Amino acid sequence: MKIIIVGASGTIGKQIVSAFEKEHEVIRVGSKSGDIQADITDPASLENMFRQLKSFDALVSATGAAYFGPWEQTTDQEYRIGVNSKLMGQVNLVLIGQHYINQKGSFTLTSGILSNDPVRGGSNASMVNGAINSFVKAASVELKDGVRINAVSPNVVEDSPEYFPFFPGEIPVAMKEVTAAYVKSVLGAATGKVLEIH
Amino acid sequence: MKIIIVGASGTIGKQIVSAFEKEHEVIRVGSKSGDIQADITDPASLENMFRQLKSFDALVSATGAAYFGPWEQTTDQEYRIGVNSKLMGQVNLVLIGQHYINQKGSFTLTSGILSNDPVRGGSNASMVNGAINSFVKAASVELKDGVRINAVSPNVVEDSPEYFPFFPGEIPVAMKEVTAAYVKSVLGAATGKVLEIH
Repeated sequence: MKIIIVGASGTIGKQIVSAFEKEHEVIRVGSKSGDIQADITDPASLENMFRQLKSFDALVSATGAAYFGPWEQTTDQEYRIGVNSKLMGQVNLVLIGQHYINQKGSFTLTSGILSNDPVRGGSNASMVNGAINSFVKAASVELKDGVRINAVSPNVVEDSPEYFPFFPGEIPVAMKEVTAAYVKSVLGAATGKVLEIH
Repeated sequence: MKIIIVGASGTIGKQIVSAFEKEHEVIRVGSKSGDIQADITDPASLENMFRQLKSFDALVSATGAAYFGPWEQTTDQEYRIGVNSKLMGQVNLVLIGQHYINQKGSFTLTSGILSNDPVRGGSNASMVNGAINSFVKAASVELKDGVRINAVSPNVVEDSPEYFPFFPGEIPVAMKEVTAAYVKSVLGAATGKVLEIH
């Protein structure tokens, strides 16, 4: 299977690469690293990436920025960080990628626990995660030729101690469990689902 | 109570005005009609609106466009309709309005059933509605001085027969029930809730 992993050098992305690279052809995509570079905030860059890769069987996105910071000083400008990156970046991977994906292929996007369980300073991420969760439900009724789509919604992961202070009282989830959810989405039968690792 | 109703001339907006105008000071906001005009896609226009109104006790938003159309031809450009209008338009009403709202005031936004129950051609609306639902949860832990925020998530309403063909098998909900949800949000005690009329 030819599997595109967007955000392949990230904390979660690296583990997803490890999970698939022995048995599949893995294409690592990064903004500055990987087998091919793409800027997810730029639809033209994504179109260019898909054109070069020609076709694929699965795309996994484990990337996308959102704004964290003091609520009262947050404006439209900060909110556009999450809108243009983690939200529309991932949505455009699907809107464009649908024209290049093979029959019975799959898309797996990343949302996160904040959609339902907000933390201070994280409202932009909450909004984006909720949007991604609803997007995969809607896209699942539209994609044709057996193409599937799911989202993985992780809690803060054990390998990201820098985020622990933002998630008071959360027990970080094991990277093994998070990685398994991506494997389940790609190799399993589910579509339109949010796989919660909370 | 001084209540701002954004989208006051709309199908739902008109009923919200009727529900409040006998006992409260209602400010009707529209893009081209009402007591004051504002363009929700333009943060500067919203800032200007709040500056003119000085302060308020409740803001109800029953407005915002999203794109409906054939999935396979949908691009970033069509998705930005919902992002800039129903999503960031409503979010900016809160991000800016928080600096003008009175203590113990409230914001009530509008999402919709498509966040969980998608229909063909409606993925942009699904995404936006999911984003709004998660946004109100996140904003509810941030707003201070007892200010509350909720979303009303209606199904297709009985007064909008033009939308019936997009919602096959849905029994349109009574406008009375939808209006009551806005009243509950404004006059009740709930915060961070999605009031579903499905």
